Amino acid sequence: MAKFLDVHSGYFGVTREQLAEAHARDLEIETDEGVHFERAWLDPESGKAFCLATGPTREAVVRIHERAGHPTGEVYELQIEV
Amino acid sequence: MAKFLDVHSGYFGVTREQLAEAHARDLEIETDEGVHFERAWLDPESGKAFCLATGPTREAVVRIHERAGHPTGEVYELQIEV
Repeated sequence: MAKFLDVHSGYFGVTREQLAEAHARDLEIETDEGVHFERAWLDPESGKAFCLATGPTREAVVRIHERAGHPTGEVYELQIEV
Repeated sequence: MAKFLDVHSGYFGVTREQLAEAHARDLEIETDEGVHFERAWLDPESGKAFCLATGPTREAVVRIHERAGHPTGEVYELQIEV
């Protein structure tokens, strides 16, 4: 199982409730691809959101985010952690 | 105390040892600014590195990374977490 961090842009002014709702949509379907989204963070001023996930492949993470309605091409495999 | 995620680019092919060494340079001086770098991740294929930190301000995180020799302007305050 690999670890991934993905980056979403353009989420200016998004609230905690909106982030929680988007994250819940991932959680609802994540097991279809063997993915788990552990955490989501947001900086509403820069509009950047980040998700930390585990899963079998980068593509699996991409597909869940697409189906949940918040696609991103910026999904990085965290091969090294210290 | 706020939480921050920063992004570094261009670290293609960096090894675990090199990341650990860079992270250690942050840890050596972080208390000067009341910052703590909790974790660092690297995707050597895309050259992206990410650090998760706590600290008083975004500028404090920027200054430690500058002094440690790996400056980045991409430091995001994680105001919202789910």
